[in-house]
Amino acid sequence: MAEEKKRLAIICIHGSLDVAFAAFVLATAGAAMEMETAVYFAFYGLEVLKKGKIDKLKVSPLANPAMPVKIPNIVAMLPGMTAAATSMMKSWMKKAKVASLGELMEMAKELGVRLIACQMSMDVMGIKKEELIEGVEIGGAATFLEFASHNAITLTF
Amino acid sequence: MAEEKKRLAIICIHGSLDVAFAAFVLATAGAAMEMETAVYFAFYGLEVLKKGKIDKLKVSPLANPAMPVKIPNIVAMLPGMTAAATSMMKSWMKKAKVASLGELMEMAKELGVRLIACQMSMDVMGIKKEELIEGVEIGGAATFLEFASHNAITLTF
Amino acid sequence: MAEEKKRLAIICIHGSLDVAFAAFVLATAGAAMEMETAVYFAFYGLEVLKKGKIDKLKVSPLANPAMPVKIPNIVAMLPGMTAAATSMMKSWMKKAKVASLGELMEMAKELGVRLIACQMSMDVMGIKKEELIEGVEIGGAATFLEFASHNAITLTF
Repeated sequence: MAEEKKRLAIICIHGSLDVAFAAFVLATAGAAMEMETAVYFAFYGLEVLKKGKIDKLKVSPLANPAMPVKIPNIVAMLPGMTAAATSMMKSWMKKAKVASLGELMEMAKELGVRLIACQMSMDVMGIKKEELIEGVEIGGAATFLEFASHNAITLTF
Repeated sequence: MAEEKKRLAIICIHGSLDVAFAAFVLATAGAAMEMETAVYFAFYGLEVLKKGKIDKLKVSPLANPAMPVKIPNIVAMLPGMTAAATSMMKSWMKKAKVASLGELMEMAKELGVRLIACQMSMDVMGIKKEELIEGVEIGGAATFLEFASHNAITLTF
Repeated sequence: MAEEKKRLAIICIHGSLDVAFAAFVLATAGAAMEMETAVYFAFYGLEVLKKGKIDKLKVSPLANPAMPVKIPNIVAMLPGMTAAATSMMKSWMKKAKVASLGELMEMAKELGVRLIACQMSMDVMGIKKEELIEGVEIGGAATFLEFASHNAITLTF
Protein backbone atom coordinates (compact mmCIF):
# COMPACT_ATOMS: atom_id res chain seq x y z
CA MET A 1 0.00 0.00 0.00
CA ALA A 2 1.42 3.35 -1.01
CA GLU A 3 1.62 5.78 1.87
CA GLU A 4 -1.29 8.19 2.02
CA LYS A 5 -0.64 11.87 1.52
CA LYS A 6 -0.14 13.74 4.79
CA ARG A 7 -3.15 15.75 5.92
CA LEU A 8 -3.62 18.75 8.17
CA ALA A 9 -7.00 18.96 9.91
CA ILE A 10 -7.71 22.14 11.87
CA ILE A 11 -10.74 23.03 14.02
CA CYS A 12 -11.33 26.72 14.70
CA ILE A 13 -13.98 27.40 17.38
CA HIS A 14 -12.98 30.97 18.19
CA GLY A 15 -13.59 34.02 16.06
CA SER A 16 -10.99 36.48 17.29
CA LEU A 17 -8.32 37.97 15.04
CA ASP A 18 -5.38 36.37 16.85
CA VAL A 19 -6.80 32.83 16.90
CA ALA A 20 -7.97 32.96 13.25
CA PHE A 21 -4.53 34.27 12.29
CA ALA A 22 -2.82 31.28 13.94
CA ALA A 23 -5.20 28.88 12.17
CA PHE A 24 -4.57 30.40 8.73
CA VAL A 25 -0.80 30.67 9.15
CA LEU A 26 -0.66 26.95 9.90
CA ALA A 27 -3.19 26.03 7.20
CA THR A 28 -1.29 27.90 4.48
CA ALA A 29 2.04 26.51 5.69
CA GLY A 30 0.64 22.97 5.62
CA ALA A 31 -0.84 23.40 2.14
CA ALA A 32 2.46 24.88 0.90
CA MET A 33 4.16 21.74 2.24
CA GLU A 34 1.73 19.76 0.07
CA MET A 35 -0.42 18.49 2.88
CA GLU A 36 -4.13 18.07 2.10
CA THR A 37 -5.51 20.73 4.40
CA ALA A 38 -8.99 21.46 5.79
CA VAL A 39 -10.16 23.96 8.39
CA TYR A 40 -13.45 23.24 10.15
CA PHE A 41 -15.13 26.33 11.60
CA ALA A 42 -17.57 25.80 14.48
CA PHE A 43 -19.26 28.05 17.04
CA TYR A 44 -17.70 31.55 17.13
CA GLY A 45 -15.28 30.41 14.42
CA LEU A 46 -18.13 30.85 11.92
CA GLU A 47 -17.59 34.62 12.17
CA VAL A 48 -14.43 34.10 10.13
CA LEU A 49 -16.44 32.75 7.20
CA LYS A 50 -19.12 35.46 7.15
CA LYS A 51 -19.11 37.74 4.11
CA GLY A 52 -17.12 40.89 4.73
CA LYS A 53 -16.01 39.86 8.23
CA ILE A 54 -12.52 38.49 7.76
CA ASP A 55 -10.80 41.87 8.02
CA LYS A 56 -13.10 43.06 10.81
CA LEU A 57 -12.29 40.39 13.41
CA LYS A 58 -11.15 41.77 16.74
CA VAL A 59 -8.71 41.08 19.56
CA SER A 60 -9.95 41.33 23.12
CA PRO A 61 -7.63 42.98 25.65
CA LEU A 62 -9.67 41.49 28.53
CA ALA A 63 -8.85 38.41 30.55
CA ASN A 64 -5.54 37.88 28.76
CA PRO A 65 -2.81 38.48 31.32
CA ALA A 66 -0.18 37.71 28.67
CA MET A 67 -1.03 40.63 26.33
CA PRO A 68 2.30 42.25 25.40
CA VAL A 69 0.95 45.69 26.35
CA LYS A 70 -0.43 45.33 29.86
CA ILE A 71 -3.86 46.92 30.25
CA PRO A 72 -5.64 46.49 33.60
CA ASN A 73 -9.02 44.78 33.18
CA ILE A 74 -10.77 47.79 34.68
CA VAL A 75 -9.49 49.82 31.74
CA ALA A 76 -9.71 47.01 29.18
CA MET A 77 -13.46 46.68 29.73
CA LEU A 78 -14.11 50.31 28.76
CA PRO A 79 -15.84 51.02 25.44
CA GLY A 80 -13.30 51.40 22.68
CA MET A 81 -10.60 49.22 24.24
CA THR A 82 -11.35 46.15 22.10
CA ALA A 83 -11.04 48.40 19.03
CA ALA A 84 -7.80 49.83 20.43
CA ALA A 85 -6.25 46.40 21.06
CA THR A 86 -7.31 45.32 17.58
CA SER A 87 -5.72 48.24 15.78
CA MET A 88 -2.58 47.87 17.88
CA MET A 89 -2.29 44.21 16.83
CA LYS A 90 -2.96 45.10 13.18
CA SER A 91 -0.32 47.84 13.20
CA TRP A 92 2.22 45.35 14.60
CA MET A 93 1.33 42.90 11.83
CA LYS A 94 1.75 45.57 9.19
CA LYS A 95 5.08 46.69 10.64
CA ALA A 96 6.31 43.08 10.65
CA LYS A 97 5.15 42.85 7.02
CA VAL A 98 3.01 39.75 7.61
CA ALA A 99 -0.02 39.15 5.41
CA SER A 100 -3.41 40.38 6.60
CA LEU A 101 -5.99 37.79 7.59
CA GLY A 102 -7.92 38.42 4.37
CA GLU A 103 -4.78 37.85 2.33
CA LEU A 104 -4.00 34.65 4.24
CA MET A 105 -7.51 33.38 3.54
CA GLU A 106 -7.17 34.10 -0.19
CA MET A 107 -3.84 32.31 -0.17
CA ALA A 108 -5.41 29.33 1.63
CA LYS A 109 -8.14 29.09 -1.01
CA GLU A 110 -5.63 29.29 -3.86
CA LEU A 111 -3.60 26.52 -2.25
CA GLY A 112 -6.73 24.36 -2.15
CA VAL A 113 -7.38 24.47 1.60
CA ARG A 114 -10.94 23.26 2.27
CA LEU A 115 -12.98 25.64 4.43
CA ILE A 116 -15.82 23.77 6.14
CA ALA A 117 -18.64 25.42 8.11
CA CYS A 118 -20.19 23.35 10.90
CA GLN A 119 -23.85 22.74 10.05
CA MET A 120 -24.95 22.32 13.67
CA SER A 121 -23.28 25.58 14.72
CA MET A 122 -25.01 27.37 11.83
CA ASP A 123 -28.35 25.98 13.04
CA VAL A 124 -27.69 26.96 16.66
CA MET A 125 -26.53 30.45 15.78
CA GLY A 126 -29.10 31.02 13.06
CA ILE A 127 -26.53 31.58 10.30
CA LYS A 128 -27.68 31.02 6.70
CA LYS A 129 -25.49 29.69 3.88
CA GLU A 130 -26.01 33.00 2.00
CA GLU A 131 -24.23 34.85 4.81
CA LEU A 132 -21.02 32.88 4.25
CA ILE A 133 -18.34 33.63 1.67
CA GLU A 134 -18.10 31.74 -1.62
CA GLY A 135 -16.37 28.41 -1.71
CA VAL A 136 -17.24 27.23 1.79
CA GLU A 137 -18.42 23.64 2.24
CA ILE A 138 -21.00 22.80 4.84
CA GLY A 139 -20.47 19.68 6.92
CA GLY A 140 -20.78 18.04 10.30
CA ALA A 141 -18.51 16.57 12.95
CA ALA A 142 -18.43 13.34 10.94
CA THR A 143 -17.12 15.22 7.87
CA PHE A 144 -14.24 16.54 9.95
CA LEU A 145 -13.48 13.26 11.72
CA GLU A 146 -13.55 11.27 8.47
CA PHE A 147 -11.01 13.70 6.98
CA ALA A 148 -8.89 13.69 10.15
CA SER A 149 -8.82 9.90 10.41
CA HIS A 150 -6.37 9.39 7.55
CA ASN A 151 -2.77 10.26 8.30
CA ALA A 152 -3.56 13.75 9.64
CA ILE A 153 -1.99 16.26 11.98
CA THR A 154 -4.90 17.69 13.99
CA LEU A 155 -4.91 21.13 15.59
CA THR A 156 -7.63 22.92 17.55
CA PHE A 157 -7.82 26.70 17.89
CA MET B 1 -0.30 -6.80 11.58
CA ALA B 2 -4.00 -5.97 11.43
CA GLU B 3 -4.65 -2.25 11.49
CA GLU B 4 -5.51 -0.90 14.91
CA LYS B 5 -8.94 0.55 15.48
CA LYS B 6 -9.04 4.32 15.02
CA ARG B 7 -9.09 6.29 18.27
CA LEU B 8 -10.28 9.76 19.21
CA ALA B 9 -8.48 11.34 22.17
CA ILE B 10 -9.86 14.64 23.44
CA ILE B 11 -8.53 16.93 26.19
CA CYS B 12 -11.00 19.38 27.72
CA ILE B 13 -9.37 22.02 29.96
CA HIS B 14 -12.23 24.53 29.94
CA GLY B 15 -15.50 24.24 31.78
CA SER B 16 -17.79 26.57 29.86
CA LEU B 17 -20.98 25.39 28.16
CA ASP B 18 -19.82 26.14 24.63
CA VAL B 19 -16.45 24.40 24.91
CA ALA B 20 -17.87 21.31 26.66
CA PHE B 21 -20.56 21.15 23.98
CA ALA B 22 -17.94 21.08 21.21
CA ALA B 23 -16.03 18.33 23.04
CA PHE B 24 -19.12 16.13 23.47
CA VAL B 25 -20.43 16.65 19.92
CA LEU B 26 -17.09 15.42 18.58
CA ALA B 27 -16.79 12.61 21.14
CA THR B 28 -20.25 11.21 20.36
CA ALA B 29 -19.69 11.58 16.60
CA GLY B 30 -16.39 9.72 16.88
CA ALA B 31 -17.89 6.94 18.99
CA ALA B 32 -20.80 6.63 16.53
CA MET B 33 -18.18 6.20 13.78
CA GLU B 34 -16.79 3.32 15.85
CA MET B 35 -13.68 5.08 17.03
CA GLU B 36 -12.46 4.17 20.52
CA THR B 37 -13.04 7.50 22.22
CA ALA B 38 -11.80 9.04 25.46
CA VAL B 39 -12.18 12.55 26.88
CA TYR B 40 -9.64 13.69 29.46
CA PHE B 41 -10.86 16.49 31.70
CA ALA B 42 -8.25 18.69 33.38
CA PHE B 43 -8.28 22.04 35.18
CA TYR B 44 -11.59 23.90 34.75
CA GLY B 45 -12.79 21.00 32.60
CA LEU B 46 -13.36 19.06 35.82
CA GLU B 47 -16.49 21.18 36.39
CA VAL B 48 -18.11 19.16 33.60
CA LEU B 49 -17.73 15.95 35.59
CA LYS B 50 -19.04 17.26 38.91
CA LYS B 51 -22.35 15.79 40.07
CA GLY B 52 -25.28 17.94 39.01
CA LYS B 53 -23.14 20.44 37.11
CA ILE B 54 -23.44 19.37 33.49
CA ASP B 55 -26.63 21.33 32.80
CA LYS B 56 -25.48 24.31 34.85
CA LEU B 57 -22.36 25.19 32.89
CA LYS B 58 -22.28 28.75 31.66
CA VAL B 59 -21.20 30.85 28.69
CA SER B 60 -19.26 34.03 29.33
CA PRO B 61 -20.19 37.04 27.20
CA LEU B 62 -16.92 38.76 28.18
CA ALA B 63 -13.73 38.96 26.16
CA ASN B 64 -15.26 37.18 23.19
CA PRO B 65 -15.45 39.72 20.37
CA ALA B 66 -16.98 37.05 18.09
CA MET B 67 -20.17 36.50 20.16
CA PRO B 68 -23.07 36.55 17.66
CA VAL B 69 -24.94 39.09 19.80
CA LYS B 70 -22.52 41.93 20.42
CA ILE B 71 -22.44 43.05 24.04
CA PRO B 72 -19.90 45.73 25.02
CA ASN B 73 -17.57 44.47 27.76
CA ILE B 74 -18.69 47.29 30.04
CA VAL B 75 -22.19 45.79 29.95
CA ALA B 76 -21.06 42.15 29.77
CA MET B 77 -19.26 42.47 33.10
CA LEU B 78 -22.44 43.46 34.96
CA PRO B 79 -24.02 40.95 37.35
CA GLY B 80 -26.53 38.77 35.53
CA MET B 81 -24.93 39.03 32.09
CA THR B 82 -23.22 35.62 32.24
CA ALA B 83 -26.60 34.11 33.11
CA ALA B 84 -28.20 36.05 30.26
CA ALA B 85 -25.64 34.87 27.68
CA THR B 86 -26.07 31.32 28.94
CA SER B 87 -29.84 31.25 28.60
CA MET B 88 -29.58 32.88 25.17
CA MET B 89 -27.21 30.13 24.02
CA LYS B 90 -29.47 27.44 25.51
CA SER B 91 -32.57 28.83 23.82
CA TRP B 92 -30.74 28.80 20.47
CA MET B 93 -29.77 25.17 21.04
CA LYS B 94 -33.36 24.25 21.88
CA LYS B 95 -34.69 26.08 18.83
CA ALA B 96 -32.17 24.26 16.63
CA LYS B 97 -33.33 21.01 18.27
CA VAL B 98 -29.81 19.95 19.26
CA ALA B 99 -29.34 17.73 22.30
CA SER B 100 -28.62 19.36 25.66
CA LEU B 101 -25.19 18.90 27.17
CA GLY B 102 -26.59 16.42 29.71
CA GLU B 103 -28.15 14.37 26.91
CA LEU B 104 -24.91 14.42 24.95
CA MET B 105 -23.01 13.15 27.99
CA GLU B 106 -25.50 10.31 28.50
CA MET B 107 -25.17 9.44 24.83
CA ALA B 108 -21.39 9.48 25.14
CA LYS B 109 -21.51 7.06 28.07
CA GLU B 110 -23.89 4.71 26.25
CA LEU B 111 -21.57 4.72 23.25
CA GLY B 112 -18.71 3.70 25.53
CA VAL B 113 -16.78 6.97 25.56
CA ARG B 114 -14.27 6.93 28.42
CA LEU B 115 -14.46 9.97 30.69
CA ILE B 116 -11.17 10.50 32.51
CA ALA B 117 -10.60 13.01 35.32
CA CYS B 118 -7.08 14.37 35.71
CA GLN B 119 -5.73 13.31 39.11
CA MET B 120 -3.30 16.21 39.43
CA SER B 121 -6.01 18.78 38.63
CA MET B 122 -8.24 17.17 41.28
CA ASP B 123 -5.41 17.52 43.79
CA VAL B 124 -4.71 21.13 42.85
CA MET B 125 -8.35 22.15 42.94
CA GLY B 126 -9.23 20.07 45.99
CA ILE B 127 -11.87 17.98 44.21
CA LYS B 128 -12.73 14.58 45.72
CA LYS B 129 -13.75 11.49 43.74
CA GLU B 130 -17.15 11.54 45.51
CA GLU B 131 -17.92 14.90 43.93
CA LEU B 132 -17.68 13.44 40.42
CA ILE B 133 -20.44 11.62 38.55
CA GLU B 134 -20.56 7.83 38.31
CA GLY B 135 -18.47 6.06 35.72
CA VAL B 136 -15.57 8.49 35.62
CA GLU B 137 -12.04 7.05 35.57
CA ILE B 138 -9.23 8.86 37.33
CA GLY B 139 -5.90 9.08 35.54
CA GLY B 140 -2.87 11.14 34.79
CA ALA B 141 -1.18 12.70 31.79
CA ALA B 142 0.45 9.32 31.10
CA THR B 143 -2.99 7.63 30.93
CA PHE B 144 -4.03 10.10 28.26
CA LEU B 145 -0.78 9.97 26.29
CA GLU B 146 -0.71 6.17 26.31
CA PHE B 147 -4.25 6.12 24.89
CA ALA B 148 -3.45 8.85 22.35
CA SER B 149 -0.29 7.17 21.13
CA HIS B 150 -2.07 4.45 19.15
CA ASN B 151 -3.65 5.55 15.88
CA ALA B 152 -5.54 8.47 17.42
CA ILE B 153 -7.00 11.78 16.31
CA THR B 154 -6.20 14.23 19.13
CA LEU B 155 -8.22 17.35 19.88
CA THR B 156 -7.82 19.94 22.63
CA PHE B 157 -10.65 22.13 23.88
CA MET C 1 10.80 -0.25 7.97
CA ALA C 2 11.38 0.05 11.70
CA GLU C 3 8.62 1.94 13.43
CA GLU C 4 9.44 5.58 14.06
CA LYS C 5 9.73 6.79 17.61
CA LYS C 6 6.50 8.31 18.91
CA ARG C 7 6.50 12.09 19.00
CA LEU C 8 4.56 14.67 20.98
CA ALA C 9 4.07 18.03 19.25
CA ILE C 10 2.49 20.80 21.32
CA ILE C 11 1.49 24.33 20.27
CA CYS C 12 1.08 26.89 23.06
CA ILE C 13 -0.54 30.16 21.93
CA HIS C 14 -1.64 31.41 25.35
CA GLY C 15 0.58 32.81 28.04
CA SER C 16 -1.43 32.33 31.20
CA LEU C 17 -0.20 30.25 34.15
CA ASP C 18 -2.92 27.59 33.87
CA VAL C 19 -2.49 26.97 30.13
CA ALA C 20 1.33 26.92 30.28
CA PHE C 21 1.09 24.51 33.21
CA ALA C 22 -1.07 22.09 31.19
CA ALA C 23 1.39 22.29 28.28
CA PHE C 24 4.42 21.54 30.48
CA VAL C 25 2.75 18.73 32.44
CA LEU C 26 1.97 16.96 29.16
CA ALA C 27 5.37 17.76 27.62
CA THR C 28 7.29 16.35 30.60
CA ALA C 29 5.00 13.30 30.80
CA GLY C 30 5.54 12.62 27.09
CA ALA C 31 9.30 13.01 27.35
CA ALA C 32 9.35 10.72 30.41
CA MET C 33 7.51 8.14 28.28
CA GLU C 34 10.36 8.47 25.78
CA MET C 35 8.45 10.39 23.17
CA GLU C 36 10.44 12.95 21.17
CA THR C 37 8.76 16.10 22.42
CA ALA C 38 8.63 19.68 21.14
CA VAL C 39 6.60 22.68 22.30
CA TYR C 40 6.06 25.49 19.81
CA PHE C 41 5.28 28.86 21.41
CA ALA C 42 3.39 31.42 19.32
CA PHE C 43 1.57 34.68 20.02
CA TYR C 44 0.97 35.22 23.76
CA GLY C 45 2.69 31.89 24.40
CA LEU C 46 6.01 33.68 23.84
CA GLU C 47 5.62 35.23 27.29
CA VAL C 48 6.47 31.79 28.70
CA LEU C 49 9.89 31.89 27.06
CA LYS C 50 10.86 35.42 28.11
CA LYS C 51 13.72 35.65 30.60
CA GLY C 52 12.47 35.82 34.17
CA LYS C 53 8.82 35.44 33.21
CA ILE C 54 8.06 31.77 33.79
CA ASP C 55 7.26 32.18 37.48
CA LYS C 56 5.41 35.46 36.94
CA LEU C 57 2.68 34.24 34.58
CA LYS C 58 -0.83 34.99 35.78
CA VAL C 59 -4.31 33.48 35.87
CA SER C 60 -7.25 35.68 34.89
CA PRO C 61 -10.39 35.36 37.01
CA LEU C 62 -12.44 37.09 34.28
CA ALA C 63 -14.64 35.46 31.67
CA ASN C 64 -14.10 31.99 33.09
CA PRO C 65 -17.42 30.83 34.50
CA ALA C 66 -15.82 27.52 35.54
CA MET C 67 -13.33 29.01 38.03
CA PRO C 68 -13.55 26.87 41.20
CA VAL C 69 -13.97 29.98 43.34
CA LYS C 70 -16.80 31.97 41.78
CA ILE C 71 -16.00 35.67 41.43
CA PRO C 72 -18.56 37.89 39.68
CA ASN C 73 -17.02 39.62 36.64
CA ILE C 74 -17.82 43.02 38.14
CA VAL C 75 -15.46 42.14 41.00
CA ALA C 76 -13.01 40.13 38.88
CA MET C 77 -12.25 43.17 36.73
CA LEU C 78 -11.10 45.26 39.69
CA PRO C 79 -7.38 46.03 40.04
CA GLY C 80 -5.66 43.34 42.08
CA MET C 81 -8.04 40.53 41.22
CA THR C 82 -5.79 38.95 38.59
CA ALA C 83 -3.00 38.92 41.17
CA ALA C 84 -5.41 37.43 43.73
CA ALA C 85 -6.55 34.63 41.40
CA THR C 86 -2.92 33.93 40.55
CA SER C 87 -1.77 33.57 44.13
CA MET C 88 -4.81 31.46 44.95
CA MET C 89 -3.94 29.07 42.11
CA LYS C 90 -0.26 29.00 43.17
CA SER C 91 -1.15 28.24 46.79
CA TRP C 92 -3.35 25.34 45.61
CA MET C 93 -0.46 24.01 43.54
CA LYS C 94 1.90 24.25 46.49
CA LYS C 95 -0.59 22.53 48.81
CA ALA C 96 -1.02 19.72 46.26
CA LYS C 97 2.79 19.48 46.12
CA VAL C 98 2.94 19.81 42.34
CA ALA C 99 6.03 21.31 40.74
CA SER C 100 6.07 25.03 39.97
CA LEU C 101 6.00 26.09 36.35
CA GLY C 102 9.69 27.03 36.51
CA GLU C 103 10.55 23.59 37.87
CA LEU C 104 8.48 21.91 35.15
CA MET C 105 10.31 23.90 32.50
CA GLU C 106 13.70 22.89 33.91
CA MET C 107 12.55 19.27 33.96
CA ALA C 108 11.37 19.58 30.35
CA LYS C 109 14.79 20.89 29.28
CA GLU C 110 16.62 18.12 31.13
CA LEU C 111 14.38 15.55 29.45
CA GLY C 112 15.34 17.00 26.08
CA VAL C 113 12.06 18.70 25.22
CA ARG C 114 12.63 21.15 22.34
CA LEU C 115 11.31 24.64 23.05
CA ILE C 116 10.64 26.50 19.80
CA ALA C 117 9.75 30.19 19.54
CA CYS C 118 7.63 31.23 16.55
CA GLN C 119 9.67 33.65 14.42
CA MET C 120 6.64 35.38 12.93
CA SER C 121 5.10 36.00 16.35
CA MET C 122 8.43 37.44 17.54
CA ASP C 123 8.40 39.80 14.55
CA VAL C 124 4.78 40.82 15.11
CA MET C 125 5.23 41.39 18.82
CA GLY C 126 8.65 42.96 18.53
CA ILE C 127 10.39 40.37 20.70
CA LYS C 128 14.16 39.94 20.27
CA LYS C 129 16.07 36.67 20.64
CA GLU C 130 18.01 38.21 23.56
CA GLU C 131 14.79 38.55 25.54
CA LEU C 132 14.24 34.78 25.47
CA ILE C 133 15.74 32.23 27.84
CA GLU C 134 18.75 30.10 26.90
CA GLY C 135 18.24 26.98 24.83
CA VAL C 136 15.23 28.13 22.83
CA GLU C 137 15.19 27.39 19.11
CA ILE C 138 13.60 29.82 16.69
CA GLY C 139 11.45 28.41 13.92
CA GLY C 140 8.38 28.84 11.79
CA ALA C 141 5.11 27.04 11.17
CA ALA C 142 6.96 24.74 8.76
CA THR C 143 9.41 23.72 11.51
CA PHE C 144 6.48 22.68 13.69
CA LEU C 145 4.54 20.92 10.93
CA GLU C 146 7.62 19.02 9.73
CA PHE C 147 8.17 17.74 13.29
CA ALA C 148 4.47 16.94 13.75
CA SER C 149 4.16 15.05 10.50
CA HIS C 150 6.02 11.96 11.71
CA ASN C 151 4.10 9.71 14.07
CA ALA C 152 3.11 12.51 16.46
CA ILE C 153 0.41 13.21 18.98
CA THR C 154 -0.49 16.89 18.48
CA LEU C 155 -1.97 19.11 21.17
CA THR C 156 -2.88 22.79 21.09
CA PHE C 157 -3.10 24.97 24.19
